[in-house]
Amino acid sequence: MASVIPVSNSSMRSDRNTYVGKRFVHVKNPYLDSMDEDILYHLDLGTKTHNLPAMFGDVKFVCVGGSPNRMKAFALFMHKELGLEEAEEDIKDICAGTDRYCMYKTGPVLAISHGMGIPSISIMLHELIKLLHHARCCDVTIIRIGTSGGIGIAPGTVVITDIAVDSFFKPRFEQIILDNIVTRSTELDKELSEELFNCSKEIPNFPTLIGHTMCTYDFYEGQGRLDGALCSFSREKKLDYLKRAYKAGVRNIEMESTVFAAMCGLCGLKAAVVCVTLLDRLDCDQINLPHDVLVEYQQRPQLLIS
Amino acid sequence: MASVIPVSNSSMRSDRNTYVGKRFVHVKNPYLDSMDEDILYHLDLGTKTHNLPAMFGDVKFVCVGGSPNRMKAFALFMHKELGLEEAEEDIKDICAGTDRYCMYKTGPVLAISHGMGIPSISIMLHELIKLLHHARCCDVTIIRIGTSGGIGIAPGTVVITDIAVDSFFKPRFEQIILDNIVTRSTELDKELSEELFNCSKEIPNFPTLIGHTMCTYDFYEGQGRLDGALCSFSREKKLDYLKRAYKAGVRNIEMESTVFAAMCGLCGLKAAVVCVTLLDRLDCDQINLPHDVLVEYQQRPQLLIS
Repeated sequence: MASVIPVSNSSMRSDRNTYVGKRFVHVKNPYLDSMDEDILYHLDLGTKTHNLPAMFGDVKFVCVGGSPNRMKAFALFMHKELGLEEAEEDIKDICAGTDRYCMYKTGPVLAISHGMGIPSISIMLHELIKLLHHARCCDVTIIRIGTSGGIGIAPGTVVITDIAVDSFFKPRFEQIILDNIVTRSTELDKELSEELFNCSKEIPNFPTLIGHTMCTYDFYEGQGRLDGALCSFSREKKLDYLKRAYKAGVRNIEMESTVFAAMCGLCGLKAAVVCVTLLDRLDCDQINLPHDVLVEYQQRPQLLIS
Repeated sequence: MASVIPVSNSSMRSDRNTYVGKRFVHVKNPYLDSMDEDILYHLDLGTKTHNLPAMFGDVKFVCVGGSPNRMKAFALFMHKELGLEEAEEDIKDICAGTDRYCMYKTGPVLAISHGMGIPSISIMLHELIKLLHHARCCDVTIIRIGTSGGIGIAPGTVVITDIAVDSFFKPRFEQIILDNIVTRSTELDKELSEELFNCSKEIPNFPTLIGHTMCTYDFYEGQGRLDGALCSFSREKKLDYLKRAYKAGVRNIEMESTVFAAMCGLCGLKAAVVCVTLLDRLDCDQINLPHDVLVEYQQRPQLLIS
């Protein structure tokens, strides 16, 4: 997201648009444009009740993350970094009418929370993509900033995802459509990942790497934790699984990246996933960092993006 | 949940306990009791930082629902219904240290939000079940109160789930454990469902039925909606799918019931799912009820439980 700040980069971007043409956010749904009204139910927004182009037409960067508080903190942080004139108090939750998600806007940056897990982020992404489409946004970059469990790397390391894989280490997202299973690609934007990785080198004491991210449907049994309410496998089986994941190129585990990569890819959004690791799963299962360390770690993806 | 209110029922319950033995909440994890400390990370509670038996030992009823605001409203409503002496202002979010879930307690009733989708409710359930285990709770009843889309029934109808089925209308929950798929039963407590159904008959203008509930991983493509950012099927295919669901006994669709039934069943919690339907999916996809009707509908499961 560094490219919005320096003037030179901004003008490069508009040059490119002039020649190459704008890349609009597109929906892949023939029914949508014939609808009289589109109610984005979980965002508490709609095409008849809100002037979406006026509210969101200038959005160029969208940051999403699980926790509402973290997304608010990110919006305030970006507001400061961008040096915008608007008062900080004016950055209000745009989705205040619902408690499903939170949304904050500062200049061209939109920050939205998505809750935990594939279904939760998928509802938000459907409605966000429709929102950006209705608002006629173009050349939008979207980055998920999150927390994760690392495999074989020091806690605090930031992992930039090259490709999201499922529990079987396969680079795919299986979407159930009616009662069929459709497999979708989970590749992320290579150029954007490398750009972010290069930025990380400029920040001192900021361990960062590019690797595969495994996305699971469950935090406990699905990630091989021995500390859930249910656990039917041995410590050895757990370690064997995590080591096989490491061998397949997996460096961290979270719960949203496959569907995020699949949906953004299909709808023309340049997408990246940047997660800090809170523990090394080869060492432990419980997150027991002191509060201040946890807070500092959670700020790392935000710092990199800004 | 009516059984806590009349004194006679309470004493019947303790009688039964004396003779039949208490049914403790059990975890199925041989590693748990050997842990020096258990941090319930997403609830911001722990065995070393909190006296869980003192805080939660008297819990007999747990109500869970997606929305934090709705769960707070439910706790306040129950507080009033139970006629407890404690001031309403003292009912505070026990998980205030995290923004992942909200939790409120009033007398023997615990109300917790679980966000949207199977992964989100599954994290909460793992930590809730461990919490009830650490607190040495027994004879706990748990009810999910939620919103859903109906099939072939009038909006506003309350559906009490007899069995939760997946997108293929099968009564199962497929849990990925490491890289194996384990199939679990999704049956709910029959006696409790019937007790709730009988209560519904005593409330005037309260359309209620017992039926199958379909649980999907996605709100749009997975539920056959024509109004998502992605839609690759026709209106005919959608209707064919929903009609087949109806024929298989499905009366409503939501996103949490299979894993809820599976986990509660395994851990000895008497469980029920009670959801109001906000629309009939054979008629439409968008939720466009006036705000006050929506609010009244959402209160129906709460009213029934109380």
